[in-house]
Amino acid sequence: MDRIKVAILGATGLVGQHFVKLLHKHPWFEIVALSSSPLSAGKIYRKVVKWYISGEMPEEVADIEVLRTDVDVLRKEGVELVFSALPSKIAREVEPRFASAGIPVISDASAFRMEQDVPILIPEVNYDHLKLTKLQMRRRGWRGFIITNPNCTAAVLALSLKPIFDEFGIKELIMVSMQAISGAGYKGLPSMAIFDNIIPYIPEEEEKVEREMLKMFGRLHEGVIRRAEFRISCSCNRVLVYNGHTEVVFVKTDRKAHADDVKKAMRRFKSLPQNLNLPSAPSRPIVVRDEMDRPQPRLDRNEYGGMSVVVGRIREDPVLEGIKYVALGHNLIRGAAGNAVLSAELAYRMSYI
Amino acid sequence: MDRIKVAILGATGLVGQHFVKLLHKHPWFEIVALSSSPLSAGKIYRKVVKWYISGEMPEEVADIEVLRTDVDVLRKEGVELVFSALPSKIAREVEPRFASAGIPVISDASAFRMEQDVPILIPEVNYDHLKLTKLQMRRRGWRGFIITNPNCTAAVLALSLKPIFDEFGIKELIMVSMQAISGAGYKGLPSMAIFDNIIPYIPEEEEKVEREMLKMFGRLHEGVIRRAEFRISCSCNRVLVYNGHTEVVFVKTDRKAHADDVKKAMRRFKSLPQNLNLPSAPSRPIVVRDEMDRPQPRLDRNEYGGMSVVVGRIREDPVLEGIKYVALGHNLIRGAAGNAVLSAELAYRMSYI
Amino acid sequence: MDRIKVAILGATGLVGQHFVKLLHKHPWFEIVALSSSPLSAGKIYRKVVKWYISGEMPEEVADIEVLRTDVDVLRKEGVELVFSALPSKIAREVEPRFASAGIPVISDASAFRMEQDVPILIPEVNYDHLKLTKLQMRRRGWRGFIITNPNCTAAVLALSLKPIFDEFGIKELIMVSMQAISGAGYKGLPSMAIFDNIIPYIPEEEEKVEREMLKMFGRLHEGVIRRAEFRISCSCNRVLVYNGHTEVVFVKTDRKAHADDVKKAMRRFKSLPQNLNLPSAPSRPIVVRDEMDRPQPRLDRNEYGGMSVVVGRIREDPVLEGIKYVALGHNLIRGAAGNAVLSAELAYRMSYI
Amino acid sequence: MDRIKVAILGATGLVGQHFVKLLHKHPWFEIVALSSSPLSAGKIYRKVVKWYISGEMPEEVADIEVLRTDVDVLRKEGVELVFSALPSKIAREVEPRFASAGIPVISDASAFRMEQDVPILIPEVNYDHLKLTKLQMRRRGWRGFIITNPNCTAAVLALSLKPIFDEFGIKELIMVSMQAISGAGYKGLPSMAIFDNIIPYIPEEEEKVEREMLKMFGRLHEGVIRRAEFRISCSCNRVLVYNGHTEVVFVKTDRKAHADDVKKAMRRFKSLPQNLNLPSAPSRPIVVRDEMDRPQPRLDRNEYGGMSVVVGRIREDPVLEGIKYVALGHNLIRGAAGNAVLSAELAYRMSYI
Repeated sequence: MDRIKVAILGATGLVGQHFVKLLHKHPWFEIVALSSSPLSAGKIYRKVVKWYISGEMPEEVADIEVLRTDVDVLRKEGVELVFSALPSKIAREVEPRFASAGIPVISDASAFRMEQDVPILIPEVNYDHLKLTKLQMRRRGWRGFIITNPNCTAAVLALSLKPIFDEFGIKELIMVSMQAISGAGYKGLPSMAIFDNIIPYIPEEEEKVEREMLKMFGRLHEGVIRRAEFRISCSCNRVLVYNGHTEVVFVKTDRKAHADDVKKAMRRFKSLPQNLNLPSAPSRPIVVRDEMDRPQPRLDRNEYGGMSVVVGRIREDPVLEGIKYVALGHNLIRGAAGNAVLSAELAYRMSYI
Repeated sequence: MDRIKVAILGATGLVGQHFVKLLHKHPWFEIVALSSSPLSAGKIYRKVVKWYISGEMPEEVADIEVLRTDVDVLRKEGVELVFSALPSKIAREVEPRFASAGIPVISDASAFRMEQDVPILIPEVNYDHLKLTKLQMRRRGWRGFIITNPNCTAAVLALSLKPIFDEFGIKELIMVSMQAISGAGYKGLPSMAIFDNIIPYIPEEEEKVEREMLKMFGRLHEGVIRRAEFRISCSCNRVLVYNGHTEVVFVKTDRKAHADDVKKAMRRFKSLPQNLNLPSAPSRPIVVRDEMDRPQPRLDRNEYGGMSVVVGRIREDPVLEGIKYVALGHNLIRGAAGNAVLSAELAYRMSYI
Repeated sequence: MDRIKVAILGATGLVGQHFVKLLHKHPWFEIVALSSSPLSAGKIYRKVVKWYISGEMPEEVADIEVLRTDVDVLRKEGVELVFSALPSKIAREVEPRFASAGIPVISDASAFRMEQDVPILIPEVNYDHLKLTKLQMRRRGWRGFIITNPNCTAAVLALSLKPIFDEFGIKELIMVSMQAISGAGYKGLPSMAIFDNIIPYIPEEEEKVEREMLKMFGRLHEGVIRRAEFRISCSCNRVLVYNGHTEVVFVKTDRKAHADDVKKAMRRFKSLPQNLNLPSAPSRPIVVRDEMDRPQPRLDRNEYGGMSVVVGRIREDPVLEGIKYVALGHNLIRGAAGNAVLSAELAYRMSYI
Repeated sequence: MDRIKVAILGATGLVGQHFVKLLHKHPWFEIVALSSSPLSAGKIYRKVVKWYISGEMPEEVADIEVLRTDVDVLRKEGVELVFSALPSKIAREVEPRFASAGIPVISDASAFRMEQDVPILIPEVNYDHLKLTKLQMRRRGWRGFIITNPNCTAAVLALSLKPIFDEFGIKELIMVSMQAISGAGYKGLPSMAIFDNIIPYIPEEEEKVEREMLKMFGRLHEGVIRRAEFRISCSCNRVLVYNGHTEVVFVKTDRKAHADDVKKAMRRFKSLPQNLNLPSAPSRPIVVRDEMDRPQPRLDRNEYGGMSVVVGRIREDPVLEGIKYVALGHNLIRGAAGNAVLSAELAYRMSYI
């Protein structure tokens, strides 16, 4: 089988590097191009990238010439699909050019997430939103489309909540996060700011999580997403953990849910990616642990290669008269590059690409 | 003025050392004895203690002989009041002996907190509960009494909530904590357990906070504390911060409270210790910060010597239709030794001692 | 091929768990038994072990019953070889029983390292010391033998120095280490001791490194190891790094060595394990990096599965008129379990087992 | 007494803030102006500075208007002396203007350290180099002068070595440092770079330490410093410690020195600042600890307000046939702002200012 030729836009940053790692031996996709800022363009990848991830940079990409993030340049390389790890501002300009030119974009940038005709996709949560891309193409006259990733914190939260939403309904939601430093990007957080410290605020994070959640859990109806209507309130904190966002969740359900029922629902939860056996689909999207003191980021963030969310401490909550639990997910895998790859797999398998 | 002669029970541990630090130049109290386990008894303090606190061990106590935790032994030293940093199990046995013998005990141990006739005291929050000691002495036939400190997390939470409770009433309360490693004691937490990690569980912590809050906010009526009746739900986490517990609080009030009103109420909050000008009373028990990214443990935990709680991010909460905010306090000062010293000052000033 | 049946003694600790991880799919060895303290004996492994290593406990061992560390008990399981991660005190009693009964012991304990007829083996460094086991068996009338691992810091140091020793000779050696917390065992180091801190002392470490180095680089002559005679001086520090010991080395050589020559010697270095293609032998035992700021523990400790030592900053030293460099190795792999497995592979391949 | 009117140049950075903290209640100096980059000029200090130091920003300076770093502007404020925390590049341009205009500069920048007629001053180590300023003024035709601080690592090293140098002479010196993150400036080190890591390289640090040491220990002879002639070799590492540089030192002395003699020499060491009772002079410039596991940065860095160097593990070294020990000092106090203030005190007391 010929693999789809893909490019990674913004390939030198932290998320870009994770795209490289996840895609370089992918059975369906083949990295044929890497793009970065004009400063790096023209040099080989090995020379411009400081490889942050443990393990070596994959040999296959080390000597690839980094290109400008330009449709024509990349098309010459035969690129059929792009994964975008671009900064939001640049994404806003550049991504539509690719989509318009018939090259679908799977984007980790926040630029287009809230556009009406652009899905924020977590394949296990709202695979049907994929259809929105049809509308998007039609409405905009594009030959390709943009699919976005949710914010990393929202990704973990939404995946953990999906079986509860399906089986019990969600009425109210409170979430307090403890987010890893890698979520701020490699140079995002001075060591002196976060060492021996917590920063109880992440710019725009709470707003993003709140609105993206309602969109992802919205129902697609006649080409429009009707946002979910539960009430949601978040408080986001940065803590000194390398990778892995931990989230404490309080949820009031529509129908009474016992802790054991929720546990079971999470444990048996599978969705379309599992049924289709997509290459990056974790066999268990939600791993439930019974130990009192789990999940823990260092021990659990790499579950199923970082694609699963690990949940523990599921118990009843007397205030919301609902359920409370702790969820953990790898912010750079399920919260970024890994989720985007899974979305691409779904789109490909469903013949959108 | 002759100072009250005090002993510190369990003087070698982390809280014991903070008692030493806070009391060694106290205007009203004079350390005349230090007790510890039989293993250390008979040796001088300097030799048995590994001084954990920055700055040197105070000269005045360095050469004091450590004594057994025994009423007769300590009475020989003229001890009139004891501060207890004993482990709970030992506190349960030993503290009544002192109280019975007419030596009041201000205890950081949890042993007697939930006894009906024992107050859990935060002088700014429930100074009137001090009266419970009268009942205690009468009922038990003791010549002294026991006053307890709340759990450290509850101390920070209760103090930050006091003006809200007074002005708006509390109906529902959700709290997620991020607690410092020093809360587990010097050897409580292996570095390999907490490094690059969060532990989303602290044994018995949530239960303690929940029940102690209701007792502290209870009303003393005919010698009985009628517990407060708001609903409360906590989720407690250990994070890699040296000192200072950070708490994210969601509160539904009885009467509608706007964020600005709460801010003002907190800012103008003063209580009996401030009015009496007690030596350890912070002039502002609650310090409100306007910056989006405060409080932060490293920057704010030593506010007023660690006796103030620092609050930030006060905003309205759409789920509980109340208020959410972040509070921070020094777990070893306001959450332990400092609060106990303030309680002793109050008791002394009110002629209970 | 039938695999050799092996047991891991002290299988529940940090090094024991690494033995499990490295051996559970080994081509030559088969784990048939796990032993631990009497407290754990009789229970299944999954129940008594708190799995510290990232990734799940291997399925194959999870339900094995943990046995007492007893020759007869383990022999019933058909054990032919044991890997020991026992505490030194227990090792001193127990290991000889196995060796005497014809079950060779590959030990990470320090108990027998300095016995004249017991080799401290790093297969790439002093494979010929393996012969000492013959003498050991004869002298002690044992049917098996004991091979020991060096101290973890010495392992990294010795491997990095081997090509220098061979090509230029060593006259003087100064080494300053910055050692990971995992070297102290899971509960060895309270978080409050090492957080925001360095501990410039590790009990007995410097002495161990100094004497073990001289023994490992000693020459085997008529059944006796004549210790190497270079002068050596160490200063060992504990720092807040999870895994990986970093060592700054200053070495005066017998023959003048230029930095470039040393670099080349290290780069081309291969030894018997590489020639024999032993399963755990890294193809490059020493990885030399040219970047100014490498090696770094987080980026380099897992090189070749943690079996390589990574060296950087090789430059000339004006004081010793020799060479200085920085070496890094994984203290639990090359410094413990991995090196022991490699020793067992060598012994097996050379028909000692 | 009228206090000398001083300005702090570069007052918003980490060292600048420490100058503010140390000077705002100084008995001899009075802060009358703060300067910063043009971006901040014209705004009040409170608004442009993110106060990094624990404890509040001193009230006295909070509302001072930040000025441009300009001689005329500052002279209008009556400035008679400046402390410079400017980046080196700017210092090179700006500091001479002040010196030339008759306003002495005490500088923490490296710009002029190696100029022949500029002293690198540690008042306890080489107070006589102060005289160099006379030559400087004459040669350059300036009405003021520049005195520089050494590099922070060199400051700790030189102070710890001074009594050895004086009593035994120094022939060879090897130093391995473990340096705090604050040494890189507030934003100097991304948390992702240093967390769970060591960086075994600090740009230009080793060269600076090596050459500054020889200059500081040089002898002033007929207006020229003849550099000391011992051989020196350093290896500098960045570790995850907030404040405090730890240095492992190996020194070969001219005359045989026993560990005990060195200990005594260090303990009794006092110098001119102590004899003159300068306000910032620690009564013991070197604090020697006998415990095996000291000094430790978290416990010892604030000794005498961070002005003392703490030394431990003094023992004989078989390689250099000299002495080895561990020294620790606060890089921002003795290694920067504190040392500069002490230099200014000395210069003032000796009537250079």
